[in-house]
Amino acid sequence: MPGEKVILALSGGPDSMALLSVLRELADKIGFMIIAAHLNHGLREEADEEARFVEDYCRLQGIPCYVKKEDIKEIAARRKKSLEEAGREERYRFFRELKKELSAHRIATAHHKDDLAETVLHHIIRGTGIKGLRGIMPVNGDLIRPLLAVTRREIEAYLEQKGIPYCIDQSNYEPVYLRNRIRHELIPYLREEFNPRLVEALCQLAYIARIENEVLEEEASKYWQEALRLKEEGKIVLDVPLLSRLHPAYQHRIIIQALKEIRGGEEGDISLKEVMEVAGLLGKTGSSRVLHLSGGVKVNKAYQELIISRKREEVEPYCYQVEIPGEIYVPEQDAFYVFSVTDIDKLDKNGVIAYLDYERLRFPLFIRSRRPGDIFRPRGLKGSKKVKDFFIDEKIPLHERDKIPLLAAEDKIYAILGIRVAEEAAVNNATQKVLVIKKRGK
Amino acid sequence: MPGEKVILALSGGPDSMALLSVLRELADKIGFMIIAAHLNHGLREEADEEARFVEDYCRLQGIPCYVKKEDIKEIAARRKKSLEEAGREERYRFFRELKKELSAHRIATAHHKDDLAETVLHHIIRGTGIKGLRGIMPVNGDLIRPLLAVTRREIEAYLEQKGIPYCIDQSNYEPVYLRNRIRHELIPYLREEFNPRLVEALCQLAYIARIENEVLEEEASKYWQEALRLKEEGKIVLDVPLLSRLHPAYQHRIIIQALKEIRGGEEGDISLKEVMEVAGLLGKTGSSRVLHLSGGVKVNKAYQELIISRKREEVEPYCYQVEIPGEIYVPEQDAFYVFSVTDIDKLDKNGVIAYLDYERLRFPLFIRSRRPGDIFRPRGLKGSKKVKDFFIDEKIPLHERDKIPLLAAEDKIYAILGIRVAEEAAVNNATQKVLVIKKRGK
Repeated sequence: MPGEKVILALSGGPDSMALLSVLRELADKIGFMIIAAHLNHGLREEADEEARFVEDYCRLQGIPCYVKKEDIKEIAARRKKSLEEAGREERYRFFRELKKELSAHRIATAHHKDDLAETVLHHIIRGTGIKGLRGIMPVNGDLIRPLLAVTRREIEAYLEQKGIPYCIDQSNYEPVYLRNRIRHELIPYLREEFNPRLVEALCQLAYIARIENEVLEEEASKYWQEALRLKEEGKIVLDVPLLSRLHPAYQHRIIIQALKEIRGGEEGDISLKEVMEVAGLLGKTGSSRVLHLSGGVKVNKAYQELIISRKREEVEPYCYQVEIPGEIYVPEQDAFYVFSVTDIDKLDKNGVIAYLDYERLRFPLFIRSRRPGDIFRPRGLKGSKKVKDFFIDEKIPLHERDKIPLLAAEDKIYAILGIRVAEEAAVNNATQKVLVIKKRGK
Repeated sequence: MPGEKVILALSGGPDSMALLSVLRELADKIGFMIIAAHLNHGLREEADEEARFVEDYCRLQGIPCYVKKEDIKEIAARRKKSLEEAGREERYRFFRELKKELSAHRIATAHHKDDLAETVLHHIIRGTGIKGLRGIMPVNGDLIRPLLAVTRREIEAYLEQKGIPYCIDQSNYEPVYLRNRIRHELIPYLREEFNPRLVEALCQLAYIARIENEVLEEEASKYWQEALRLKEEGKIVLDVPLLSRLHPAYQHRIIIQALKEIRGGEEGDISLKEVMEVAGLLGKTGSSRVLHLSGGVKVNKAYQELIISRKREEVEPYCYQVEIPGEIYVPEQDAFYVFSVTDIDKLDKNGVIAYLDYERLRFPLFIRSRRPGDIFRPRGLKGSKKVKDFFIDEKIPLHERDKIPLLAAEDKIYAILGIRVAEEAAVNNATQKVLVIKKRGK
């Protein structure tokens, strides 16, 4: 990786501070460049202090450092996710955006052996297949985890030996987080009562699962190519005679792949039960068999074809003109959007879903659904993007995309409400008047 | 399976009593025959009572029932195994012998979903690969587990509904057994604190591991055939260029196979570390590389060959004549063997490693090592067997076979001391005088 730019996820905690030190030594030898990135979750009192610590340390060490603040609590509430999940999503989103902006090559995170063991155990308890047993991958696309082969204890010893400063994240000890209970309760209990070498055992299982999954995946993707007769939005057609000849292990992997692509969600959301039901169709004789799965997915075996489709909810396009100040009811969201204008220094972000630079907007404004060809420049990104691609990148499920409200002028999209504002409308240092948008139920 | 004979492992506990009832219903419909088998471990006070319960119940129901008593405590001590392990080994040995004797086709055990989940969890904690995640197989050679898809609770409900009697094994509640701690402490804790559907999650993982392991195993065994250049006692030669081209997942499985065959032990005894070391040899250049593994196994990469061999300990053949009564020191065992004759009604089995029907023996007797062509008729078996094959069936590691002492007359083997006596010398109803053999250290 000589000449590459590596973005380092730097929380300021012991693990990432150790990784920074390790990478710096390597960077000189190999000749790559480190860029630190810190997302301030704004969740704890010390959050701002930690952001400052990271910035100061990087300045002293001559490492470029990017810090961004997000209100994770608000985002989690909006997306109905846990703080952990929303935090992780926003961190990776920030790193990915930065990577694009800086034309960087990789993102390094400081996950170590104990993290790996905790993840594997978490997946096992929650329910998983071979893929989930891999836990955390040492290399996964643009992500690298250089510390995955060392333990937390080894990292602590390294920090002490080198005299490297770090912050302690108190929330790591709060037992409300499932991960913390696995770390501080379950693993110590299993180590003491059952196997002192538990972490090692789980990491070895992860390694075996990783290499064995790799060959299974390779084979399965060959079969997928062979079995795929048609793929279009909301519809996948597979070859029944070919699938029938495959070992159930491959049938399952191909069915999972198909359901994942149709639903647009995560693999973990697919149950073994439904996979087995679909596989069961293959053996059924008779001209036509139909299966209705959750999320409006229909599986139809018709002669030689297995047709997996999703009923597309017909959402009528909508468009409502906005009055400022004023409020408007959007039936597609079953909610009111409330618009007002305020001075930047009087801005209160409470309950606000978006705020824009009032003086940079053109009027009239509309709340409307997306239209083919819509283009948008997400804040923080340099270029423009098709709204369709933005939805895909944001992993917005297909069936929601036509309902999501955009805020737009005649020929410009200023915001995807609740998700992102456009660069052209974003508040900046020059902003004086702010358009504030709130949302409330009926 | 119409016309087949199925041996049912009948402990008398709830699970096996339920299985008996289920199988009886099926037996009439499908037309197979049930034979009950009960091994009395002699471990608890109630053991004899339970054996009688099983016999009485079977008699009433018209089911043939075979009961055998073994001193598991003594066997466990002799083999340096846990009571659990020794008990399991002896049970399966008894079932297998009975199967042979009665020309039966299958052995049915009453393992259920909770047993499966406990086994999977036990393997995970102890350390395992994909194979170990399978836990208990629904069908494994001649073994069948018809209840593997139902839970303990479902079995209890079935027993109550049908009014079927059963015994309760108190030792199932003793927390000294690891299995019981997993059952009564760990699983309830994980269910309450982490996932109420834990058993389901573990059983699904076992299922996925089972089908995915199957395809991996199929592929690996093809590659094994291709890569195997030579296989003889204590030596396996594999093709290096072929192995090098394989995915690490297959390299590992082939190396495990080779080490298993060379060591003659269980797969679980092979560590990932040594497998990776052997795989590491493949990539090493240079003419010759040697690796010394535990158990005297040597792995040698020489040009195009990977030679896995086990240094055969040269044990000189030995033969000592026995005086009766009297004692003899056997240096190969570093132990004395003490011989005496007693009346059958004065027989005290304490500390005895073998006892034979004195009047059926021919003299003089010898303690000696095995010789090529030795033949032996193990007690309980109908036919004769080569001693070599007996050792293989008993999974006696290769390097121990030349040391094990046989008790023999000029042309007859009466016992493999500490392991089995011959049918011709075994004590039976007609026996009056007993040759008692004890063993003691120097």
